[in-house]
Amino acid sequence: MKNKFYAYIQNLQDQICKGLEEMDGNAKFREDIWKRPEGGGGRTRLIESGSVFEKAGVNISAVHGKLPDSMQSLFNVGEADFFACGLSLVIHPKSPMVPTVHANWRYFEMYDDKSNVINSWFGGGQDLTPYYLFEEDAIHFHQTCKKACDIHSDVIEKNLYEKYKKQCDAYFWNAHRNEARGIGGLFFDYCKESETVKMDDWYNFVTEVGSSFLEAYLPIVEKRKNLTYTDQQKTWQEIRRGRYVEFNLVHDKGTLFGLKTNGRIESILMSLPPKVQWVYDHHPDTGSEEEKLIKILENPINWIAD
Amino acid sequence: MKNKFYAYIQNLQDQICKGLEEMDGNAKFREDIWKRPEGGGGRTRLIESGSVFEKAGVNISAVHGKLPDSMQSLFNVGEADFFACGLSLVIHPKSPMVPTVHANWRYFEMYDDKSNVINSWFGGGQDLTPYYLFEEDAIHFHQTCKKACDIHSDVIEKNLYEKYKKQCDAYFWNAHRNEARGIGGLFFDYCKESETVKMDDWYNFVTEVGSSFLEAYLPIVEKRKNLTYTDQQKTWQEIRRGRYVEFNLVHDKGTLFGLKTNGRIESILMSLPPKVQWVYDHHPDTGSEEEKLIKILENPINWIAD
Repeated sequence: MKNKFYAYIQNLQDQICKGLEEMDGNAKFREDIWKRPEGGGGRTRLIESGSVFEKAGVNISAVHGKLPDSMQSLFNVGEADFFACGLSLVIHPKSPMVPTVHANWRYFEMYDDKSNVINSWFGGGQDLTPYYLFEEDAIHFHQTCKKACDIHSDVIEKNLYEKYKKQCDAYFWNAHRNEARGIGGLFFDYCKESETVKMDDWYNFVTEVGSSFLEAYLPIVEKRKNLTYTDQQKTWQEIRRGRYVEFNLVHDKGTLFGLKTNGRIESILMSLPPKVQWVYDHHPDTGSEEEKLIKILENPINWIAD
Repeated sequence: MKNKFYAYIQNLQDQICKGLEEMDGNAKFREDIWKRPEGGGGRTRLIESGSVFEKAGVNISAVHGKLPDSMQSLFNVGEADFFACGLSLVIHPKSPMVPTVHANWRYFEMYDDKSNVINSWFGGGQDLTPYYLFEEDAIHFHQTCKKACDIHSDVIEKNLYEKYKKQCDAYFWNAHRNEARGIGGLFFDYCKESETVKMDDWYNFVTEVGSSFLEAYLPIVEKRKNLTYTDQQKTWQEIRRGRYVEFNLVHDKGTLFGLKTNGRIESILMSLPPKVQWVYDHHPDTGSEEEKLIKILENPINWIAD
């Protein structure tokens, strides 16, 4: 399974980078290959200062070795060997009319002292962070998420989309601001084998979601990338990016875990936006588009009618 | 003591704001008075887009009530009433040639159910974060810190400056970057009464430090504020401000504590710089001024010969 999934994400990284390069029309991904001293490594790909994408990172990694202390306590286990691989991406467009997007799909294995797999699971998801809310974009993103879920809900569980949509809203909650990071998407973790669901079923689901990513995101970029915007709207984007930084550094378990376990800092913090502002006690004008966004973030809604 | 110290910091806020306004020559502090629903409140003062200071916050607060759960576990005590007051400031100058500075001086009391003070202590410090290193500025800042310490080291403890300088380097350590936030200063906490040191001795020390702040900082601003700088140097400042954000949101106990205990978010996050950049895997050129700074941050040095 680990080889199959790692081959999948290597290929997916190529596809996603190709799709983003074509959409940008100008920028090309640069690549950094890195090694993890304790075992494994990764392939970081990055665009900075593109025509459409101000900063876009699409990373894969596959790491293995002794489970670090911090992961032992996280998983509530003793010493063990592990393997983990995944694809992580964060895309910060230049235009405030185009939403930021984040996605991650990952697979984890733990071994006993005879190298038998004693536990394995998938995790991941994708979520959208607009600066201006075009409702049809939010609906399109969620519909694409739902379509990928629906294909597998007979095999895995009814209402897969509804469950993972709710988990996404719960996870990307910027608690100290009392608002969501964005308008959500999917979030799932610890997707393990059960009596009725095989690891291959999970593989089929997770790869379905991964493979639907470009379909979920690119049409939105295409629709919004040529809209004009003002300096004030760009400033609003940079202020909202500050909330993105706050979520990632204060609440995001993945980021904090990476920072505290000697992860590759530059690959982890690639998620941070290129230019950010903090303005004291900023509030959008009553009735403005900016206020409309905030209201949705404070009370996440269902984008797809039941 | 609480009234005496709160009166002191009210007055100190006025003095510091006056000194900064005179130095800026243009900007005036705006003021926000706020109330804490559970008891107490504060007076936030702020400059944005000044001629010299791009963002400067000088806050005082005095809060009281039931010790929140999180503070009970922090202090390892049960239910109790508390009082806390302090002055906090963070100043982000426009020019990359002028260092950022942070300071905080605070006093804490806890009470038994008959309102007797069962525990009280002072804490605080100040530290400097340059973007370009002028050694004479670092030495001036530390010398002013040392002078304030030396006046009270006979009464309190020998080598007060050396002790608090070391604690400052340890506290403002940006662990995931393996570098200091800045070139340090003083950091002290849990300064309590003992057989030989009275609370009045601590009061005299802490107020000595507080009152030396403008003397420590303003001459540096005066010396550097009119130096010319390039766009590239401004970009370097904004990248380094990113490290400031990382420290405050990932490691700073005070910030995290505030965010997780329903503190006044806008006053807490006033410490964040106005404009910030994250550039992937940025490294200064070999032999550059930027590299010289990094080397000092990676290996904090003593600025005052023994």
